[in-house]
Amino acid sequence: MPASPLITFLTDYGLTGGYVAACEAVIARLAPAVRVLHAAHEVGLGDVGEGARILARVAPLGPVAVHLAVVDPGVGTSRRPLLLGTVRGDHLVGPDNGLLLPAVAALGGLRQAWALDPSRVRDRAGLVPGVSRTFHGRDVFAPAAALMARGEPAESIADETDPEALVALPAPLLVVDVTAVRSEVIEVDAFGNVGLSLPFADLPFASGPLAVQIEEAEMGPPWRARRAATFADLATGELGLMGDSWGQACLVLNGASAAELLGATAGDVVRLARDAS
Amino acid sequence: MPASPLITFLTDYGLTGGYVAACEAVIARLAPAVRVLHAAHEVGLGDVGEGARILARVAPLGPVAVHLAVVDPGVGTSRRPLLLGTVRGDHLVGPDNGLLLPAVAALGGLRQAWALDPSRVRDRAGLVPGVSRTFHGRDVFAPAAALMARGEPAESIADETDPEALVALPAPLLVVDVTAVRSEVIEVDAFGNVGLSLPFADLPFASGPLAVQIEEAEMGPPWRARRAATFADLATGELGLMGDSWGQACLVLNGASAAELLGATAGDVVRLARDAS
Amino acid sequence: MPASPLITFLTDYGLTGGYVAACEAVIARLAPAVRVLHAAHEVGLGDVGEGARILARVAPLGPVAVHLAVVDPGVGTSRRPLLLGTVRGDHLVGPDNGLLLPAVAALGGLRQAWALDPSRVRDRAGLVPGVSRTFHGRDVFAPAAALMARGEPAESIADETDPEALVALPAPLLVVDVTAVRSEVIEVDAFGNVGLSLPFADLPFASGPLAVQIEEAEMGPPWRARRAATFADLATGELGLMGDSWGQACLVLNGASAAELLGATAGDVVRLARDAS
Repeated sequence: MPASPLITFLTDYGLTGGYVAACEAVIARLAPAVRVLHAAHEVGLGDVGEGARILARVAPLGPVAVHLAVVDPGVGTSRRPLLLGTVRGDHLVGPDNGLLLPAVAALGGLRQAWALDPSRVRDRAGLVPGVSRTFHGRDVFAPAAALMARGEPAESIADETDPEALVALPAPLLVVDVTAVRSEVIEVDAFGNVGLSLPFADLPFASGPLAVQIEEAEMGPPWRARRAATFADLATGELGLMGDSWGQACLVLNGASAAELLGATAGDVVRLARDAS
Repeated sequence: MPASPLITFLTDYGLTGGYVAACEAVIARLAPAVRVLHAAHEVGLGDVGEGARILARVAPLGPVAVHLAVVDPGVGTSRRPLLLGTVRGDHLVGPDNGLLLPAVAALGGLRQAWALDPSRVRDRAGLVPGVSRTFHGRDVFAPAAALMARGEPAESIADETDPEALVALPAPLLVVDVTAVRSEVIEVDAFGNVGLSLPFADLPFASGPLAVQIEEAEMGPPWRARRAATFADLATGELGLMGDSWGQACLVLNGASAAELLGATAGDVVRLARDAS
Repeated sequence: MPASPLITFLTDYGLTGGYVAACEAVIARLAPAVRVLHAAHEVGLGDVGEGARILARVAPLGPVAVHLAVVDPGVGTSRRPLLLGTVRGDHLVGPDNGLLLPAVAALGGLRQAWALDPSRVRDRAGLVPGVSRTFHGRDVFAPAAALMARGEPAESIADETDPEALVALPAPLLVVDVTAVRSEVIEVDAFGNVGLSLPFADLPFASGPLAVQIEEAEMGPPWRARRAATFADLATGELGLMGDSWGQACLVLNGASAAELLGATAGDVVRLARDAS
């Protein structure tokens, strides 16, 4: 297996306490020539969906690499540690909880899947046996990523597994038809922009204003939104639907928080239709 | 144009969401041998002055490099994307809003200025055409910085432009005469230290206590401050004027916030005179 | 002295303002081939104990390196700048306030100690003479680390000093006997887990529930805690004693903050005994 000069690294560890550095130190010891690109370490604690989304956005922009990702609320349980190979030639290392799969898709799809064997990982890495209950990033995943980056064969540390058995995150809701779209809120950013599961290019209504509602038991009258290419297209206080920098449809309010106006949070379902008023 | 092994990188993107990593991934793809030194990513959102100040402080301490800086409240408008060459041999890449110029001055001055052509940047980089409205860091500036770092000629991605036409930040107010100094507050740090536009070495009064006032419609009586070399020279609760670690004059209060005592915020004008009392 | 390809870097500077980047730029200029591994920069301001603990945890996981650490509340006073050599072959650079010594112990112990001479550091580095009062990271420590990493002899920038004269942090209280343990709280993390000075493996009571008290003038009745291997061993709201990911004993509360329940903060003394009830 050819060596990779780069490991991208994503966690929810935060930057205090030395957890990220502990993993990077392990990598520096095992694969001194390999470089580490920090993708994100302030993913919401245990927020597998957010980690998956960032990884799937960042990884395809870079070169073929080993992608080490640890957002792992199931650490210490029986969830499996994975090694995945992509069509593009990347390797991904992390827990079997759906974190890695969106990035695999964005990297051309899955070529092969393995379950890491922590004992063989540590043995091959020349580390003392034994794995903590709580810090598999340092004890299993970082060593495995370093071994892959320096070109060790996957079979030396992992056993092939059935791709059908991998744990996937539920896809966010998205129903598109010619008269209406039902789309889940996948993220609300610091500005109150409301990111949707709908790719902006897939919006079915070619032009004209939109009616926007948050689905709930008693839905109020719809808000009116205008399709916009940029914030400058909107009047102050006007609601707009734009493509965000990742190509997703996004509800925005010029000068204020669209999320606050709409009362929208991640997981809500937004109904978009032509505005008939 | 010779290649540079280092790109310094400064933004106001923050460390969440993968925006910084998206740019670094683009660089890793286009210029795998080039290293990235993260100068700062928690610049105040859209605070071009703060970004410019940090860049001008950090860049001259390092080797000749490509300096990629994106604090860009005008993204998506007609503001121009720039490439600047310094007398020292550095290249700076970023928006034409004054962000880059203090660093250029600190790096020996401007040798040549170009306006980046986003289409040629993407073409030369082998990227698909098209630029988002909101994320020129990833789509234009990072690729341009990577191309410069790997030694591509500026003319392949940019057109020479008139240095006189570059947008500059207004210089902070500073009026020094033999009896008084009027100096703008350029920053208030987390400790409440009040950084001034006055270089400490330019303080005209050779010795003795100082009278300090914040200029406003109805100025109260002046505060009394003592020139100090270090905090330890001041009694608890005593106001002092020191040189900060960048050589600027700075009002400090031993054990408390000088900004709070004086009611000073960035942009205020401080009047310093000899204390006659 | 052989060159080291890696500098680990720890401070309490935080990530705003460019202070970390200023030091890294100095390193990049003096030792362009050396890589920097950021261990932590959000150590509590002036918290030498926290910095020492993180450094001692991270450094032994990585390769032989130069470890640059600056948590330095005494900057500008007469505290000495140090260079320490370890049995393993590492070098540590930082202030003489106890910050470096736990890492030295974790790296096999001290082989040799030097006091840095700031003038010779700057001269050898080709920097202008003169050191700020407040930013020795940039002016003394980073240049010294870079010089060591590129293989300069210690004697060219430092004078050997008596290891007995090094300033040490007071060891946290720990008294273990067969009936009770008195152990200092060394850290409370973001989840309210209460980390103790007691290595978990040194707990003297082989099994059975524990009685837990915070020592103070009027101690209330003890809390009851159960030894656990993982959070999943505990009922919701149950107090447990676990080994943390660094091997220290740690009081935890499944689903809530043990620190809040116990009213425990860093520096408190916890009394553990067999639960007789």
